[in-house]
Amino acid sequence: MNLKMVLKGLGTLLLCEAIALLPSILVSSIYKDGAVMAFIYTLFLLIIAGLPLAKLKPKANSIYARDGFAIVAAGWIIISLFGALPYYFSGSILSFGDSLFEAVSGFTTTGATILDNVEVLPASILFWRSFTNWLGGMGVLVLTLAILPSVGAGTLQIMKAEVPGPNPGKIVPRISNTVRILYKIYLSITIIEIVLLLASGLPLYDSFIHAFGTTGTAGVSNKNLSIAAYDNVATEIIITIFMLACGVNFTLYYQVIKGNVMALLKDEEFRFYIGVVIGSIILISVNLYGNVYQSIGESLRHSSFQVASMITTTGYSSSNFDTWPLFSKMILLLLMFIGGSSGSTVGAIKSIRILLLLKSTKIEMKSIIHPKAVYSVRLGNKIIDEKTLSGVKNFFFAYILIFVVAVVVVSLDGFDFSTTLSAAAASLGNTGVGFGDVGPLGNYSNMSGLSKAVLSICMLMGRLEIYPILVLTMPSLWKK
Amino acid sequence: MNLKMVLKGLGTLLLCEAIALLPSILVSSIYKDGAVMAFIYTLFLLIIAGLPLAKLKPKANSIYARDGFAIVAAGWIIISLFGALPYYFSGSILSFGDSLFEAVSGFTTTGATILDNVEVLPASILFWRSFTNWLGGMGVLVLTLAILPSVGAGTLQIMKAEVPGPNPGKIVPRISNTVRILYKIYLSITIIEIVLLLASGLPLYDSFIHAFGTTGTAGVSNKNLSIAAYDNVATEIIITIFMLACGVNFTLYYQVIKGNVMALLKDEEFRFYIGVVIGSIILISVNLYGNVYQSIGESLRHSSFQVASMITTTGYSSSNFDTWPLFSKMILLLLMFIGGSSGSTVGAIKSIRILLLLKSTKIEMKSIIHPKAVYSVRLGNKIIDEKTLSGVKNFFFAYILIFVVAVVVVSLDGFDFSTTLSAAAASLGNTGVGFGDVGPLGNYSNMSGLSKAVLSICMLMGRLEIYPILVLTMPSLWKK
Repeated sequence: MNLKMVLKGLGTLLLCEAIALLPSILVSSIYKDGAVMAFIYTLFLLIIAGLPLAKLKPKANSIYARDGFAIVAAGWIIISLFGALPYYFSGSILSFGDSLFEAVSGFTTTGATILDNVEVLPASILFWRSFTNWLGGMGVLVLTLAILPSVGAGTLQIMKAEVPGPNPGKIVPRISNTVRILYKIYLSITIIEIVLLLASGLPLYDSFIHAFGTTGTAGVSNKNLSIAAYDNVATEIIITIFMLACGVNFTLYYQVIKGNVMALLKDEEFRFYIGVVIGSIILISVNLYGNVYQSIGESLRHSSFQVASMITTTGYSSSNFDTWPLFSKMILLLLMFIGGSSGSTVGAIKSIRILLLLKSTKIEMKSIIHPKAVYSVRLGNKIIDEKTLSGVKNFFFAYILIFVVAVVVVSLDGFDFSTTLSAAAASLGNTGVGFGDVGPLGNYSNMSGLSKAVLSICMLMGRLEIYPILVLTMPSLWKK
Repeated sequence: MNLKMVLKGLGTLLLCEAIALLPSILVSSIYKDGAVMAFIYTLFLLIIAGLPLAKLKPKANSIYARDGFAIVAAGWIIISLFGALPYYFSGSILSFGDSLFEAVSGFTTTGATILDNVEVLPASILFWRSFTNWLGGMGVLVLTLAILPSVGAGTLQIMKAEVPGPNPGKIVPRISNTVRILYKIYLSITIIEIVLLLASGLPLYDSFIHAFGTTGTAGVSNKNLSIAAYDNVATEIIITIFMLACGVNFTLYYQVIKGNVMALLKDEEFRFYIGVVIGSIILISVNLYGNVYQSIGESLRHSSFQVASMITTTGYSSSNFDTWPLFSKMILLLLMFIGGSSGSTVGAIKSIRILLLLKSTKIEMKSIIHPKAVYSVRLGNKIIDEKTLSGVKNFFFAYILIFVVAVVVVSLDGFDFSTTLSAAAASLGNTGVGFGDVGPLGNYSNMSGLSKAVLSICMLMGRLEIYPILVLTMPSLWKK
């Protein structure tokens, strides 16, 4: 491992985080909410820790996949450690453990919270909380497009991308052209959503909070009731559309901008994703109509919002869906596992992997009937090689394995089945909201320290597509 | 497809089932329980349907994997259809749908029941119910050893077996030597258990019922409270040991008998299986001690029994474990998915597959750190080829997929989370007993017809390792 290069990378990351504190400091000065010193202290600590590391001069400049993994995994952990400080210093969250949970939840775009009442907190603290969602989303775009592709586990490797990817094996040290373009798209989507939310009647501050929460597909709100607090159909429609839009592979938007409008409709993952969304909305609407809502319109309104929220692993709620019939809840739980498209800010297993696994199953059945024929899995007009498929299948098992371990640990707390299962699924899938005690009206505050720790690790694992965190635990990573 | 050969096979199977009714007829005559005519009518129908088919003279004698699959899948369905008749004709179960559920549950060695009160039923009917468990277990031994190995999905293919397997591609028409030996072992285990249960104080009739239920790893009882009805430690210990013994690969016993005693300890799957059993017993005992039972002995007694019952997918209960803490229940639920060893009568995913999946995950992590190194998964001293591993990973996904579909369908009934999830897991894994409404004191009678139908299909799929049933739905199977 090129340790100096890894440390230099981490130092640069800390300096970036210091800069990222500035908007919150501005918000604190405007609202005079008394939290400004919490940010200033954190800023100084970040500079003190970051500057010496960023100034390191490594002998060799080249870094390999495993170094990239170390930067990513350690980086997400370190920015969460420092990102927790404003909560702690301002007294908004009393224990550092809970502050860390909240920070991990923010940067991993999960949106799980231990806060019982967010509405009493300083404006700048809630702004920071939501801004970490947005930063996390940016981080994921670099991650999936620049770092994960260098190993078999990456989603980009399996997606039909015409944009040039980075070299496998080595990571391009400067942020590639691709990523810069995607950032522009990300920023544009955010600005458009802020404007539309304003137009729908939300205050400017609330528009920022929810635009960050949407584009990061994290779902953090400044209202205890989440989006349901506004009971505003226009706001809900805007957020529904933007959540869904942020669950689409961003490289497809790049192609659309380049003039290749058909790229979107030709993309098999996009079609699968939209198919699952439409199918789920229909099933849940039918289930809700007459049972929960007395009009088709209301059923469609809330089912669309919740389906978009769950499949994109955002976690906003437009109603208390924990009181919905079990069938609707099971569909929502399933969506938490599927997730949106690769190359977006969503978490979970992701549509492309589920699609490839379904195709593999079909091929397996065909092979049983015709043992001598040779079949291959195709995506678009491209054959997916065995190594990639094997990686996808391994990922699926690893994902379920970690889910099961988390469920067993959380079950020690003695909550009910739905709370325990959905807490693990929502953390690993970066959705945040689940059922029961962690449902739309609940939060993670009553969980034990052990559960919070394990769920935080799940958020990190889910966010980083499992392997970077797992690999950190292997002694051979740390050898020369 | 060699249709005539398939039909001939099915005809022979029906005649075998006719013979299998004779013990129940004997029991009915002894107990004069009034159910004898139900068996006689069934016997005649079986002969009328089976004889013409068995007498078919196919042009070609050879059958291929897909024909074998059709015989197995259609066979299990047809014997269940006829096997349901005694319940229906005797009036023990009022609807034919429920009778079929009970018969499918019996022949798939699941042991799920729709009966509220078994103790009021005729002795011969309960004997038939338990005997179907035992016959199902016999069926599984042929299945896993003679038919499934011919395709990638088979567990035998991946197990280090020194006994000669049948030719891949073609199925040996007569029951192979191997299977005959395994039947002798199966019969011996049954007889020994009957004798020991008698010695522990059970009546002869009860000893038969529970020995059949144990060796078939199905868990059918003539008591509403299952094994808890006896509250007899000796009986529990005997059944615990025999359940665990029936979860071991039967070919290992064959090797031990041949003098290769070390084969058992050298077998990696066996070590994994025993490791999971011991680990689970310790975890659950610690969780129960002080919470549910006030002595270490009682905690160990019930945790051992229940762990053995769940991992072998038997489904007997020595206490109402539905009232245990969530942690213990989650471990039990997990065991329902893992299952015992390949080449035994257990259902579920099976230890060997879980072991290979865990090894694959480790290899994947190693490959990330050292991308240029080549690693392979080993079992004992044998390298497992990529095709087999791919089959195992596909199987895992297919298993989870079917579980999820079943959960979604059953959720329409509106039971709670634990009932819905465990009903699907217990049906697909052939355990039968779950939590909540389908827990040790409950049964499946309150489920809707749709749920019962889907769960019956799950039982068949779980029992036949998924593919034979899935393949039946593919049009290309039915082409010439």
